[in-house]
Amino acid sequence: MAFVDILGYSAGAITSLTFLPQVIKTWKEKSAKDISLLMFLIAAINEVMWIWYGALLDNWVIILTNAIVLSMSLIMIWLKYRYK
Amino acid sequence: MAFVDILGYSAGAITSLTFLPQVIKTWKEKSAKDISLLMFLIAAINEVMWIWYGALLDNWVIILTNAIVLSMSLIMIWLKYRYK
Repeated sequence: MAFVDILGYSAGAITSLTFLPQVIKTWKEKSAKDISLLMFLIAAINEVMWIWYGALLDNWVIILTNAIVLSMSLIMIWLKYRYK
Repeated sequence: MAFVDILGYSAGAITSLTFLPQVIKTWKEKSAKDISLLMFLIAAINEVMWIWYGALLDNWVIILTNAIVLSMSLIMIWLKYRYK
């Protein structure tokens, strides 16, 4: 595999886990006052667009990566409502 | 332009602005206690990887989109240190 491909797959894997530290922190501390609900609403809508894009291109890397980020965004929206 | 391309460019434009509502909220409220520093550190490193990836592919859409997200991540890291 070429270096550029390894870099792309590595970057994609890290992207899919970007929201995880925020989910864990909010889950543990039960406080989401400082969290922007709008940011995670935009992220969720945006990931639906990316999943649709991936589906049209039949690209499972795009679909799966964004499905993970979408699930974390939805958890953050739920945590924001619970601990606002 | 095909629908799939319009969808991809639209999704990319929204992705580049995802962190903006969080930057504005933290800037205005001067409170970042609930924000995960680790999330924005991971995001910043990840965006450097994406910019590198875009540079290797000579793809300016990838470079510019991620440069915007990188700058917002760095602002969030600074806001987190200032208002932790």
